[in-house]
Amino acid sequence: MKKLDKITPQEQEFSRWYTDVVKQGQLMEYGPVKGTIIFKPNAYGIWENIQTEFNKIIKSKGVQNVYLPVLIPLSYIEKEKDHVKGFAPELATITKVGEKELNEYAVMRPTSEVLFGELFSKEINSYNDLPIMYNQWANVLRWEKTTNPFLRTSEFLWQEGHTAHSNALEARKLSRTMIKEYAKFLEKFLAIPTIVGKKTPKEKFAGAVTTYTIEAMMKDGKALQSGTSHYLGQNFAKAFNVSFQNKDNKQELAYQTSWGVSTRLIGAIIMTHGDDRGIIMPPKIAPTQIDVLEIFGNKHENVHATAQDLIKQLGRKWRVRLDASDKGPGFKAGQSEIQGTPLRIEVGPRDLEQGLVTLVRRDTLEKIQVPVNDVKNRIKKLLEDIHNNLLSSAKQRLEEKTVYTESYEEFKEIFKDDKNLKFVIVPFAGDEEDENKIKKETFASTRCLPFKFDKPGIRRCIITGKETKRFVIFAKAY
Amino acid sequence: MKKLDKITPQEQEFSRWYTDVVKQGQLMEYGPVKGTIIFKPNAYGIWENIQTEFNKIIKSKGVQNVYLPVLIPLSYIEKEKDHVKGFAPELATITKVGEKELNEYAVMRPTSEVLFGELFSKEINSYNDLPIMYNQWANVLRWEKTTNPFLRTSEFLWQEGHTAHSNALEARKLSRTMIKEYAKFLEKFLAIPTIVGKKTPKEKFAGAVTTYTIEAMMKDGKALQSGTSHYLGQNFAKAFNVSFQNKDNKQELAYQTSWGVSTRLIGAIIMTHGDDRGIIMPPKIAPTQIDVLEIFGNKHENVHATAQDLIKQLGRKWRVRLDASDKGPGFKAGQSEIQGTPLRIEVGPRDLEQGLVTLVRRDTLEKIQVPVNDVKNRIKKLLEDIHNNLLSSAKQRLEEKTVYTESYEEFKEIFKDDKNLKFVIVPFAGDEEDENKIKKETFASTRCLPFKFDKPGIRRCIITGKETKRFVIFAKAY
Repeated sequence: MKKLDKITPQEQEFSRWYTDVVKQGQLMEYGPVKGTIIFKPNAYGIWENIQTEFNKIIKSKGVQNVYLPVLIPLSYIEKEKDHVKGFAPELATITKVGEKELNEYAVMRPTSEVLFGELFSKEINSYNDLPIMYNQWANVLRWEKTTNPFLRTSEFLWQEGHTAHSNALEARKLSRTMIKEYAKFLEKFLAIPTIVGKKTPKEKFAGAVTTYTIEAMMKDGKALQSGTSHYLGQNFAKAFNVSFQNKDNKQELAYQTSWGVSTRLIGAIIMTHGDDRGIIMPPKIAPTQIDVLEIFGNKHENVHATAQDLIKQLGRKWRVRLDASDKGPGFKAGQSEIQGTPLRIEVGPRDLEQGLVTLVRRDTLEKIQVPVNDVKNRIKKLLEDIHNNLLSSAKQRLEEKTVYTESYEEFKEIFKDDKNLKFVIVPFAGDEEDENKIKKETFASTRCLPFKFDKPGIRRCIITGKETKRFVIFAKAY
Repeated sequence: MKKLDKITPQEQEFSRWYTDVVKQGQLMEYGPVKGTIIFKPNAYGIWENIQTEFNKIIKSKGVQNVYLPVLIPLSYIEKEKDHVKGFAPELATITKVGEKELNEYAVMRPTSEVLFGELFSKEINSYNDLPIMYNQWANVLRWEKTTNPFLRTSEFLWQEGHTAHSNALEARKLSRTMIKEYAKFLEKFLAIPTIVGKKTPKEKFAGAVTTYTIEAMMKDGKALQSGTSHYLGQNFAKAFNVSFQNKDNKQELAYQTSWGVSTRLIGAIIMTHGDDRGIIMPPKIAPTQIDVLEIFGNKHENVHATAQDLIKQLGRKWRVRLDASDKGPGFKAGQSEIQGTPLRIEVGPRDLEQGLVTLVRRDTLEKIQVPVNDVKNRIKKLLEDIHNNLLSSAKQRLEEKTVYTESYEEFKEIFKDDKNLKFVIVPFAGDEEDENKIKKETFASTRCLPFKFDKPGIRRCIITGKETKRFVIFAKAY
């Protein structure tokens, strides 16, 4: 085990803090191909726990998991015009196998609408077959120009849900339901509050009619798009002839949705909760929920025995890890802190003389001395407290740093540097060109039209001056 | 839902029976790129359950899950000579992204020894860091000339374990432990008995010192290699400089293993247990363990209410599915049978008059009338019985169809056609050339040197006539 290097403080340079903690926190290594990363146990464990919990939610809704091929014929991608326009430059293309050139080139999936389109076309005959609701957990590949661990990598892991329906209303409703499920999921399991809304036409998914999004605020005030849900209308049904016999015995094209969250959520966790000591894992999805540290266990038999006993007791219910190495107490505590374990238990000879051990919360760093016999009864509440504290801190920040203005001057002032970034809600009736102008002048982009925001009366667009009742959130974004 | 097509009987043509049931049993569809398949819910569900159970086993051994990139620079594969020789013709190669040619070509992983090699070289400094034990669940791609759903597909899903150790003995021992774990796993969860053994040098993994294997016997007497575990020695450590400071303060190369099972196991399940009515799922990994069928539930309120109640009760503990459609009872039973659900409960108006429902075992087709209130108490034992029955039938077949001979004439007689195929154990001291000769003459290949087989005294090799104590199993294989 290498020694800990220093972590750049967040205040000094947030982006360097991030790169420091993802490495030091045992989350990742860079892969040899540009933009790829290795998910180490402390990161992959988050993803496993997200999978377990999210599977429960979608299965309870009748969604079934499937797995579709990673290879897609290039010609398939080209069938939906907006789709190919959006993805073409990022497509990793397989042109040969061994020394042999392929007759038809294949690409690695950047997303799987086209394959699900074809599958639906095979499976759907009549309205009785609808809705069909599928999901897959898979790797996808989009060759990105600039990459950042977890936030933007060439290959990433995600789930992609794909559904087909017999009418537009039901499909659109499902796409809205799923974005709200994502928002609930992030609050409940990752302690991350988000703003739910609709993307502007400029920012919607290539091939969608409407894209819904959840936008989270990182500690530096930047936005992270953390999940999206698309109402696809009949766009892909048209391209792949997904049709069914409706109740009037007529052929009709199906209405589709797709929705996904990715390993980007790991980045969201780090930048929402982390501090200058490292990562802070939300307890419900923490790969390790409790670190038990032996303090001089090699010299004190009772330390070792107590630690072993705690691991055994707590391991039945929680994800626990024992550090029985001969490293010093400070090093062990530092390792546990940088890796973000929500709770650690220090078992030391001095405490034990009084029958006590010390519990340390990762979020507040509060130390609590507890009788050994009482530890088990304290864990549940403590982990809940940690979750609630992380969530309420993040909520408070999101609320405090979300502002409303009708002045473009004020708007520009907020984005003039990265020191005091905010989410800025404005009346906005502009089009793609106006969005480009704002982005050029301020580096801020539209995040969404929030579901839950309204101001009475007619307002004027900060760019066009037109009267509008349309409110849009702008932010600098990852 | 389309109507059921006829299934070719096994006796008539086993391979067509197989293709029929994988389609009719709602397991797969072909993907658009050659050799790829879509895993439908009834197949992917098996894989999910295998993941859940196998994760428990490896995590209890201290193995940690990680995820490494799907893309490997071509130059990396070339670093281990045997490795590149084995895989080069099957490598799907990415030469361009969008319209832009890549400076360095990348391949989709056919397996990940080289990336784990590099990861280990970064993580290992001293003997204190060893052993390291990682596993990943991933898709891999090997471009195959002839493909067959689940058994041999270009892309497949698998787990690959990779470990590094400070001494050869420990590494070799772990590779043997893992092959035995696989054998136990297949018996306990898939009801599939296997023969555990060592591959001949000709058949070992490209880059391994020794390959261990589990070989299962399909219903047609052919062998299916169902899992392998490799002792890699220092081959990859040499290629990727995986070295550590040993206890004598000297640099030493690490000793590695790798081991895997894949979605090929789904094929093993189908061909071990299936019959002319379709698939039979081993209860412990069945995607649906119990089908509850309403018989004329749309006309009888008490049928519907009882079925709903059973689903609710049983769903707490088992994976259940309700068929409340207005299809006929025969169609519903047929669907449940072809899809292989181990147990179905028929809830019909006539039975209900006497307070009964009918339980039907998929393996024996036995019908058991049971009071509604008693159903819950019967399930556990019934599912255990089904598992045990499937396992003992498969064991009996494996024993009866495994024979010993010292006569090459008798050997050739067994393999002269596909009507009465067997596993044939022979004394064999031949080399690769002799194996090729046998394969050419009989289509049989060496499966393994079984761990558990011995004959007293010195025997003569059936090909070379040399004295030997080496026994090898031959079989026709998938």
